[in-house]
Parts: sequence; structure tokens; C-alpha cells
Amino acid sequence: MTGELPGPVLIVGTGLIGTSIGLALRRAEVEVRLRDVDDTALAQAVALGAGSPDTGEHGSPAGGDQSPAALAIVAVPPGQAARVVVDLLHSGAAEYVTDVTSVKASVAATVRAASGRPGGYVGSHPMAGRELAGPAGALVDLFEGRPWVICPDDSTDQQAAARVLSVIRLAGGMPVTMSATEHDAAVALVSHTPHVISALVAGRLRDAPAHEVRLAGPGIGDVTRIAAGDPRLWTEILTANAGSVRSVLEGVHDDLGRILAALHGNPDRGAHDDGVDRAAVDDVLRRGVVGRSRLPGKHGADKAEYATVIVVVDDRPGQLAALFADAGAAGVNVEDVRIDHSPGQPLGLVELDVSPGADVALERALSEEGWTVHG
Amino acid sequence: MTGELPGPVLIVGTGLIGTSIGLALRRAEVEVRLRDVDDTALAQAVALGAGSPDTGEHGSPAGGDQSPAALAIVAVPPGQAARVVVDLLHSGAAEYVTDVTSVKASVAATVRAASGRPGGYVGSHPMAGRELAGPAGALVDLFEGRPWVICPDDSTDQQAAARVLSVIRLAGGMPVTMSATEHDAAVALVSHTPHVISALVAGRLRDAPAHEVRLAGPGIGDVTRIAAGDPRLWTEILTANAGSVRSVLEGVHDDLGRILAALHGNPDRGAHDDGVDRAAVDDVLRRGVVGRSRLPGKHGADKAEYATVIVVVDDRPGQLAALFADAGAAGVNVEDVRIDHSPGQPLGLVELDVSPGADVALERALSEEGWTVHG
Repeated sequence: MTGELPGPVLIVGTGLIGTSIGLALRRAEVEVRLRDVDDTALAQAVALGAGSPDTGEHGSPAGGDQSPAALAIVAVPPGQAARVVVDLLHSGAAEYVTDVTSVKASVAATVRAASGRPGGYVGSHPMAGRELAGPAGALVDLFEGRPWVICPDDSTDQQAAARVLSVIRLAGGMPVTMSATEHDAAVALVSHTPHVISALVAGRLRDAPAHEVRLAGPGIGDVTRIAAGDPRLWTEILTANAGSVRSVLEGVHDDLGRILAALHGNPDRGAHDDGVDRAAVDDVLRRGVVGRSRLPGKHGADKAEYATVIVVVDDRPGQLAALFADAGAAGVNVEDVRIDHSPGQPLGLVELDVSPGADVALERALSEEGWTVHG
Repeated sequence: MTGELPGPVLIVGTGLIGTSIGLALRRAEVEVRLRDVDDTALAQAVALGAGSPDTGEHGSPAGGDQSPAALAIVAVPPGQAARVVVDLLHSGAAEYVTDVTSVKASVAATVRAASGRPGGYVGSHPMAGRELAGPAGALVDLFEGRPWVICPDDSTDQQAAARVLSVIRLAGGMPVTMSATEHDAAVALVSHTPHVISALVAGRLRDAPAHEVRLAGPGIGDVTRIAAGDPRLWTEILTANAGSVRSVLEGVHDDLGRILAALHGNPDRGAHDDGVDRAAVDDVLRRGVVGRSRLPGKHGADKAEYATVIVVVDDRPGQLAALFADAGAAGVNVEDVRIDHSPGQPLGLVELDVSPGADVALERALSEEGWTVHG
């Protein structure tokens, strides 16, 4: 138990995020109480070791002799978060309250309007997640090294912020402070808009002829990966952040209109020319290259800073083990790895990302061990 | 030398694709002649073993005693392909000609109009590529198990098609026959439109504040990965396939307009409601889920058919080797692997995809070896 967390933590909502926080706090030997309206999810989180069932009543003061929690963490779907936060502030079940849902301004506004004690609340948002939902997907390390946004405002009690920062530290997250409005604009850009766009591209495949879909390669696979996310959860997220998402999507809509016009071409340019405005198309693509290069890579480094070594492997047990054993024996740390799928074939390509310079040593070492290697 | 390839193959353009085809044909002991307007690229392809420099003159009959090639393969940028094909058909340097550029109808139309021997040409397109351009990126296995489209029409000489099919077979590709128009519509859907959309999302990052970009996670990383591609090449591709790309992009533009309207909401619904049309938002997301599920996975199976085991590893040499050695010792074949980046942290998560059922055995085996494992 740390100085900043002078009592138990109450987690309301034992899905992926709530259960993962419970696991991280239990690892640090913090007492954790768990609530969920779904008894099965609650039992599963308890069985995983994320905490003990809370004995207080829902939305009422802690039952029996139970003392208030030092902090309540609300990890329910976005559409319910504000109500649960307000209920907790009224109930006295916890001294301070945070929520960890992915949209912050709307929750804060409701809490300010509906609670007599808005300073007891501070919103936060760990930038971590998985495609696997529910407590079964929980990971004690889910927040390790990930940004975890905290959104205090002028009314926020310093103790509330301090206790949330303790949780972030114990879970291994990197605290990032910004206003709720700044947060919502940021996630609209880096998370919510990409989700919508991914769904739109994937949606085009829905009614496409099979012979067209058959030609799909890794590119469209990457673009549409997140489109597999839970539509119910994402409808709530997009609804809660509709304003910020709209303003980014409107920019994309305008850009899309511009590239459509560029591909239509200028009929005045005559029949000797296909009329496509190549300069405008090129400009859109170059902006994409520059924007892409701004994304943070591993350890804050850009992915382009790695060198890649490609190795041909048989698709059978033991091949990857032998490959990584030989890479390890060469003293080279593999920073990232991708396996290139070859439908219907027994051969695969493994791409190993290593520090620049290490690629030469790795290529030589693997070649000497008999691997077919490409730089 | 096979019956269908009764002579040497001439490859014009020794970039990534041309050099990779040369490597595959040389592996099968086919005689390969290489041409490129860039002497450095040509020398590099020759040094890699993709073939010998062609001794005939550009665009003229084969020089000296050189007999015509059985097949010429044009692997130049899309904007130049048609002209090079026509020149080759006139020159007599090859009995038959194919090109391997990524747009087919415009090349075929030019060849029909400009060549006295259109039946000697058949277009084709291997659905393979890499982010690394040029001969240095060439791989003998680049086409293994990948679809390779061939687009014969009524005028196509059967020998032309037979020789291209021989090349596809020797390179390990899966031949797929369709018309040039069908091909162009298919790649507009599964390749060209995703590229444009990826560039538009990435372009939004270009002028965004650093604190917003800092929150980016793996989702937007996936969506924008292909936006890093060469703008010059992609401008040519999009220009050559402008009509088909426009028709897919117009669908995306319309869908984007609809979700923008849904997020704006209906002002008639009054102040008690945020006005967002949740049903319309949900519908867009569900269409995305269905479309995404149609994408072919490895060996034709859907990726969702794999089970995933997550392992915590230290970020240092030898850890992956030890992990794969233990997985191999358990007799489990790892079908795919992802390393989850944790900026600024010494710990990483490795996700191993295995056949359903094998995950239980793998989890048990790895746990027994002391790994921290999550199902």
C-alpha cells in the first residue's frame, strides 16, 4: 500500500480494462474490490485474481462495516460512465473517483452538472486495448509503457489526481496530462477516425464479388484490421465523441472529394491527355508519407530506423525456434518480426527488424547457418 | 527448359518485380536476358543472379546472332508499360510479350490500337510486392503461393497465354484468369482504394499537434502502414486505373457522408437527446465487420480461426530464441507472431497464433518452462 493509496481501490466494471487494472494493482499488493452488473464477468475477474467481490451495495453507501475505498475506478461502457461516476460520488463508497472510458469531456460535463462534489472526480484514459474483450482478455501488463491520459481541471482535488497517478505508476503506464477537450480531439484523430475509415473500407468488401476479394493482400488486411472491433462499443464511443470525430472526418471527406476531382481530371486539357491531375494526386500521397512518418515507433523511435532482414523458412514446427536461436547466438536483438503469409504454400518469409548495422551481422550469421537470407 | 518455354525469357525492367521473376526463372534454369534503362539497376540484377544483360538493342530487332526470346516480360512503371510492349511486338525481340504492371485495361487498349500483332500480347499481374523497391528488394520467393492474374481476351494467341502460365508456375504463383476490366475493378477495391484511404488518414497526422500524435497506438499504425509507399509509383498506378478507383472511392465518399450525417444527428429529436443516429453508426460498423471477415487468411483460412497465446518477454537478445525453442519443443507450429511494442519499457508482449486446440498445450508447455503466459 503506498502513501498515495491509503486504502482499497474499488473497480466498477470487470471487462478487459477493469480486470487488467485489478491484476496490476493486486500484483502491487493493493487491496482491490470488484463490482459488475454481470455476475459471470465478476466471478471470472475474481477467479483471475483481479480482486475480491465488493460487499457494498450498488449505488449506495458501502454496506456493513466496509470503509470507503481510497479510489473508485469506473471501467464501464462509455454510455454509462457518467451516471456511474455521479452515483459513486453521491454514495460515499469511495473518497475519489476516476473513469477510464475513451471519451472524457462529456463525462466531465455531466459530473460537473449533476454532482455536488465534482472535485472528487478526475477522468483518465489508458491508451491500451486488445481485440479480445471481457475479463478473459485481461493482462497484468496491458498498460506497461503505454500513455495513460489524466484530465484534471481547475476544480479537481489534488488528492484525486495523486491517487490516479499512483494507479498509473503501479500499472506501468506513462502519465500524460491534458484537458478533456484536448484528449477527445486527440483520440478522434488517432483512434476514432481510423476506426470509422477502416470500417468504411472493410464495408466495401461486404458485397464484392468473390473473385475480387480473392486478390486481397496484406495491404488491405492492415487497413481493415481494426474494423473487426465490437460495433456496440464503438457506436457508444463515436456517439460520445461525435463532435471531435466529425471535425476530423470532415477533413477526410474534403480530402477525398479533392482526390476524386483530381482523378476525374480536367476536361479542358483535351483528348490527348487522360486529364488526371497527377500533381494533386501526388500531393495527397506525399502528405500521407509525411504524416505516417510522425507516428511513434517502439521506444519512441520511428519504425523506419530499423533494418530488415528477410529469411525463408519452412512452415513446420521448430523452424522459427531454430531461426531465433541462431539470431540469438549472433547476439542480435530482434526488435520486431513479421511472418509473411503464403496461402497454400509450405514456404514462408520471416521479416526480422533489427537495429541499423546489426542487419549485416545477422545476415552473415544466418547465411553461415544455412538460412536463405535477403537484406 | 520446359516445353512451354522453348527459349530464353527477356525481362525488361529490373526493379523489384522484374528481378524477382528473373531469380525465380534462373532457379528453374531458364535462360534469362535482362534490360533496364538504368545501368546501375541492371548491373545489380545481374550481380544478384537474375539473368544476363541482353545484347539486343532497345526497341530494335535482337542484335547480332541473338535469336528472339520465347517471351518478353515488361516490368517497367505503369505509365511506360504500353509503349514498351508495343515496341517489343514490333521489334521481333520476343515471340510473345506480357507485362506485369498493376493496371491492365489501359495497356491492353493501347496494344490493340497500336500494334499490328495484338494476339502476341497477354497482360498479367502478380499480386505480390514489398515496401522495399528496386532490385535490392528482389526475392526468389516473392510470388510463392500468391495469386498471379492473367488477362487473355478473344484475340490472344494461345501460345502467349501458355508461356505466361509457365512463368507463373515456375515462380510458384497461383494463376487466376479474368478479363482486364475485371482485374482493374478488383485491384481498385482491394489495393488502390485502400492505398488512397490510408494516405488520407496518414495525411491528417501531418499538421497535428505533437501531444495528439503521441497518443497513437497500433490501430492507426495498421491503417496507415501502406501510406509509406512510393508516391511517384502510386500516382502512376492511380492515374492508369482512375476510372475503377473513382467508382470505389465514390462509394466510400458517399458512406462517409452518411456517417457524418448520422454523427450530426437529427435536431428534431430535441435537447434531451444528443441526436446521434446510433442505428446508422452501428450499421456502418457492422458492415465493416462483415466485409473484414471475407478477407482470405493464411492457407485460405480466416485469421479468426487461429488461437492466440500471449507471452511476456524481456526486450533483450535470446529471449525470442528461447521462446520459440520452447514452443518448438512442445511440437506446436506457430502460424503467425506479433510483437507488441511498449514504448520506453524493457518488457514486451509476444502474441503467438496457433491452430485452435494447440493453444492449450502451448500455454501449458510455456508455463512449465517459466514463461508468463496469457490465453
